[in-house]
Amino acid sequence: MMARAKRVPGAPGALVPIGGAESGSREPVTLGRFIYESGGPGCELVVVPTGSSDGDTGARYREIFARLGARVVHLVDPRNRHEANDEQMVALVRRASGIFLTGGDQYRLAARLRGTAVGRAIRTAHLAGVTVGGTSAGAAVLSSQMIAFGKSGATPRAGMVTLSPGLGLTARFIIDQHFRQRDRLGRLLTALATYPRRIGIGLDEDTAAVIRPDGFEVVGAGAITVVDATRSSARTPRHPDRQDPISIANLTLHVLAHGATFDITTRTATPPPGTSEA
Amino acid sequence: MMARAKRVPGAPGALVPIGGAESGSREPVTLGRFIYESGGPGCELVVVPTGSSDGDTGARYREIFARLGARVVHLVDPRNRHEANDEQMVALVRRASGIFLTGGDQYRLAARLRGTAVGRAIRTAHLAGVTVGGTSAGAAVLSSQMIAFGKSGATPRAGMVTLSPGLGLTARFIIDQHFRQRDRLGRLLTALATYPRRIGIGLDEDTAAVIRPDGFEVVGAGAITVVDATRSSARTPRHPDRQDPISIANLTLHVLAHGATFDITTRTATPPPGTSEA
Repeated sequence: MMARAKRVPGAPGALVPIGGAESGSREPVTLGRFIYESGGPGCELVVVPTGSSDGDTGARYREIFARLGARVVHLVDPRNRHEANDEQMVALVRRASGIFLTGGDQYRLAARLRGTAVGRAIRTAHLAGVTVGGTSAGAAVLSSQMIAFGKSGATPRAGMVTLSPGLGLTARFIIDQHFRQRDRLGRLLTALATYPRRIGIGLDEDTAAVIRPDGFEVVGAGAITVVDATRSSARTPRHPDRQDPISIANLTLHVLAHGATFDITTRTATPPPGTSEA
Repeated sequence: MMARAKRVPGAPGALVPIGGAESGSREPVTLGRFIYESGGPGCELVVVPTGSSDGDTGARYREIFARLGARVVHLVDPRNRHEANDEQMVALVRRASGIFLTGGDQYRLAARLRGTAVGRAIRTAHLAGVTVGGTSAGAAVLSSQMIAFGKSGATPRAGMVTLSPGLGLTARFIIDQHFRQRDRLGRLLTALATYPRRIGIGLDEDTAAVIRPDGFEVVGAGAITVVDATRSSARTPRHPDRQDPISIANLTLHVLAHGATFDITTRTATPPPGTSEA
């Protein structure tokens, strides 16, 4: 398991968004998988703790990744947009075979990195085959449109979610996290009412999607809720109040546990091996 | 609006499950609709508060329904299965044009009524055209298989729901309530993994489905989450732990607000009139 993932020449690297709360797990399979996708034991990583307002976050992940076999873990933590153009930081991003964005506030993370040299270096590295992972806010920020903040609850409502640009590593997905634990189906559905061609993925805590160009695989203790709004139609009242529920017909929903896969071309899910009809 | 609903000769009455917390609403449109479906102002109702352990529940609903225009409201509250065979109670059920089951504990309610003379009289009345409504536990109990209890959370897990027989007024639906407020998608999906031919309907609080033989209409402040598992496949680990997430692919999901309808034959949803593309 802790070998080195095969790299396809010319293909972008894997994206590994995690639903949060992975480091509390006794067996951090999601972080272990990130290491594997980043080249396995001996790899050189960059951790970006910039989303977090807790000064210890970077050091904590450095320790976890070292324990899981990373040889070198650099912290890249620009305190403002000016620092995010620093050439030394860019050089560290260019050396890494895996880049990890911690939790915190995705809005702050995107505001500090988008359009800076460090932000561009992360995109360039990913396109060249480097794995980019992130947990919680660091998962949400990976997509081109992200959920910046929103309200909890299963029912979509007109004003319950605020979308804003993320780091733009994928335009196929809108990624939400702490999904089961914070009851976020409604805000994901509301986001898809605006962007119905994206696939919504709701990551439970301690659960990761390993995204490649053709789809993704589920890793971890929880499940991923996949919402495909391609065939759906959403309707709002003509003069909606922020509290008004939105009607959405014909969503396709998949709930996928560890080992299941999703094919983005056919938009079909394959259940985990070793399971049987319920 | 407070006229009398048209009755189709030979057809069963409407079923009006409500998601709970409807009486706290300033405009109890769901209860008003129940009155309308029961014949409108001047109707004679039976309230069954047997699910509730609060001795004031019956009197409270009697007052609300009187305020909304009911001419007579009888309480039918058997304290045990022996009383539920009482001929006077059965006679009251036979006179009513609407029967309402309050909230409380659906397991207790079903245990006290199933297979008794009062339970049979409610079924017979419904088949003869009488409207049967219920809120919270009183909504859940309407179906032939009901969710007796379960855990909250959006992700289905092997042991998160316990199903047991309800009053059997419909075999088409599995009805859950307080849906958005108590984060119950996971337990509804788990129930459908066992009964994939039923339609799952999750009622938000202060929201009702008005069910007729051909489908239902949405009434109230929240939304109804409709889960159609007909085309789905559910997979569990071969030796599942109660905590293991279940994988379910190809569910169809509709979230429907006030005025939307669902056709049970075609399994299609029609959005509310007066709304526009989101």
